[in-house]
Amino acid sequence: MTHTAEIISVGTELLLGNIVNSDAMDISQMLSELGINVYFHTVVGDNPERLKSAVAVAKSRADIIITTGGLGPTCDDLTKQTLAEAFGKKLIFDEHEAQAIREYFEKRLRSHQMTDNNYQQALLPEGCVVFHNDNGTAPGCAFEAGGVHVLMLPGPPVECVPMFRACAMPYLRKLSELEIVSHNIHIFGLGESFVEDKLRDTMLRLQNPTLAPYAKSGEVRLRVTARAKSDSEAEAMMAPVIAEVRAKLGNCVYGIDTDTLENTVLGLLREKGVTLASAESCTGGLVSKRMTDLSGASEVYLGGAVTYAVSSKTAILGVSAELIEEKGVVSREVALAMASGVRERFGSNLGVGITGIAGPSSDDSGTPVGTVFVALSAPEGTYARHLHLGQGRERVRISAANHALDMVRRYLTGLPVEEWEK
Amino acid sequence: MTHTAEIISVGTELLLGNIVNSDAMDISQMLSELGINVYFHTVVGDNPERLKSAVAVAKSRADIIITTGGLGPTCDDLTKQTLAEAFGKKLIFDEHEAQAIREYFEKRLRSHQMTDNNYQQALLPEGCVVFHNDNGTAPGCAFEAGGVHVLMLPGPPVECVPMFRACAMPYLRKLSELEIVSHNIHIFGLGESFVEDKLRDTMLRLQNPTLAPYAKSGEVRLRVTARAKSDSEAEAMMAPVIAEVRAKLGNCVYGIDTDTLENTVLGLLREKGVTLASAESCTGGLVSKRMTDLSGASEVYLGGAVTYAVSSKTAILGVSAELIEEKGVVSREVALAMASGVRERFGSNLGVGITGIAGPSSDDSGTPVGTVFVALSAPEGTYARHLHLGQGRERVRISAANHALDMVRRYLTGLPVEEWEK
Repeated sequence: MTHTAEIISVGTELLLGNIVNSDAMDISQMLSELGINVYFHTVVGDNPERLKSAVAVAKSRADIIITTGGLGPTCDDLTKQTLAEAFGKKLIFDEHEAQAIREYFEKRLRSHQMTDNNYQQALLPEGCVVFHNDNGTAPGCAFEAGGVHVLMLPGPPVECVPMFRACAMPYLRKLSELEIVSHNIHIFGLGESFVEDKLRDTMLRLQNPTLAPYAKSGEVRLRVTARAKSDSEAEAMMAPVIAEVRAKLGNCVYGIDTDTLENTVLGLLREKGVTLASAESCTGGLVSKRMTDLSGASEVYLGGAVTYAVSSKTAILGVSAELIEEKGVVSREVALAMASGVRERFGSNLGVGITGIAGPSSDDSGTPVGTVFVALSAPEGTYARHLHLGQGRERVRISAANHALDMVRRYLTGLPVEEWEK
Repeated sequence: MTHTAEIISVGTELLLGNIVNSDAMDISQMLSELGINVYFHTVVGDNPERLKSAVAVAKSRADIIITTGGLGPTCDDLTKQTLAEAFGKKLIFDEHEAQAIREYFEKRLRSHQMTDNNYQQALLPEGCVVFHNDNGTAPGCAFEAGGVHVLMLPGPPVECVPMFRACAMPYLRKLSELEIVSHNIHIFGLGESFVEDKLRDTMLRLQNPTLAPYAKSGEVRLRVTARAKSDSEAEAMMAPVIAEVRAKLGNCVYGIDTDTLENTVLGLLREKGVTLASAESCTGGLVSKRMTDLSGASEVYLGGAVTYAVSSKTAILGVSAELIEEKGVVSREVALAMASGVRERFGSNLGVGITGIAGPSSDDSGTPVGTVFVALSAPEGTYARHLHLGQGRERVRISAANHALDMVRRYLTGLPVEEWEK
């Protein structure tokens, strides 16, 4: 039987536009991994009457109701009371959770005074499954009533998402007799329509496992999902599909279940004991920022130069002023000189150089917005790509940084560095 | 009369968790500026039956229905048809918009073939107000039926948000006899509880204009909103409130309606003709990235060095190896030497230097995570802050970059550079 879930996010701050509803996105992704349909999200404020009406609507169209938010200690936080009432459950004081809340205050919140309100968080619907909160004081919970499963989670994403993964997913998995396992296939350098074209027949043919594309952070990704009696059986069913995707898309597949391109690059640099430095102009430090978003990057990512002003390319990286004059600041030669210069200055094994026009307007030379040269300098030689990345400052910058990371990835895995598809 | 709006976001990609519903957040913020209540957000997939049921629910509880998404040219895009039907409106072919779509294809999408489907976008509800789309092909629209105002906007944020501001806000403003004008007051260096404490009496006292705090990107902001017969009357009502906030919070108010701290800094640098360069360690290029997010930064922001490896601080910035050995790489002295070094290398008027431990783990010296030194080197002298920014890699990095930008701001406005409140 296929289940249908509705997510009800509770919080006036969402309706005021103070925060974005990332919980609903993250939970939807995880529900999609579980093969559970989601037909509606609802957002409602900290108001018991309106929450009650939203629950009544949700009950009529879903058999799994997931709430986020409103489990805090203040009088605004009424999710548990409202949901328990709607499903005819009493709230019972849970001594075990009260003790956990006391300990959390003692260990983690020494500067805060625990008040009687905090104990209100230990009131839980009778007979529920308790979801312990490792990152805050409010426990979550789940219960079943009249064929509807109700799951309640705290609102802060740092509490909600780990709890959903650790507690709600196992709870929901048990509703199905089958295990559902999925993998994400990460692709660089191929457009969505190209990927769909290559794999349309496979996607239409497959029933279990399934293969479906999804877009994320401007990249195309594929998700393969299998339902089977055991994890190992599911893995065995997915292996030939992943092999087929790799065969059809070749080395544009840069990883399976890797988080980002920079994660893949960091892994390769560490594995091979290779160091990297970056010289950036139009991307303005985005490669540096993305590499150093990852903790532990300092072992292999030595640093970078953001040479935004033309003169700084000469002063900091030693790019010859004559070369800039002759070839133009946005040119293959300058990108290569930046890559070699930063490699030399930082004493790294590899250097990348990026120069281009991110827009919105062009420079004096009339080079079109979106023109970017990305170069890699390595002990064996140098490589460059001449890119036309279109309009949109943010998009051009992200895409140019992606190309620089992809060149490093391809170099480290022995692939043709200058090749990519569009 | 106070209006109540409901936002219905249409798109299966939202229910699959592929994208976050930023449109609902951005529109909610703008509705809050207009003084329009929002009690519910609903997300529904590309399914006409479920969209129809969501509209029926919304009609019963709101007198303004705003939809985003589902205006595209494919057969999945059914928002206009469904809403027109629900409110008994015919769709009429709008020759003027068809011409605009043709022109958009010719000018902006030369590589794409226009198909008959694209003309479907020129079908609009009879008697509607057309919202022209400057950033895509799908026009939006608004109509009134049975006391309910229906506004439809495209889904991509780059189309939706500018259209809401340019077309939907003026439409909604006319529903009220009063003009509603608001200003955002940006604050750096004061905690939310401190701000509330200082201004609680004022916030409680005021009815029109109102003063309310809101949190955004980890900063505390205040919004002052006035309703009056004219803009100028509203401005006159708000002026003393803004003056009172400035008097109570002093120079921690860094701007009114300025977008970000980097925007304020860029404005000051340009106004005073001063150039800046940055040397970053733990922030890994975040200052560079934020400065170069702004187009036109290259006139005053010359660039930066991301000296992530210890040795690169010496090689790139000329920080003495003995100094690093003696004082430690995370020290006031090294931050100052980085600031001075980058200023000299880039030939800029000002240099900032940042060194610290972003975590999650400390370095060999045992310096606690969150310890950061931020320094400013200027022609008249040098300045530094010793910060304890707590846990959380991302939070430490953002906060350290904020402090660097705040020091530049304070220097350029003649305020004590090393002072800040917590």
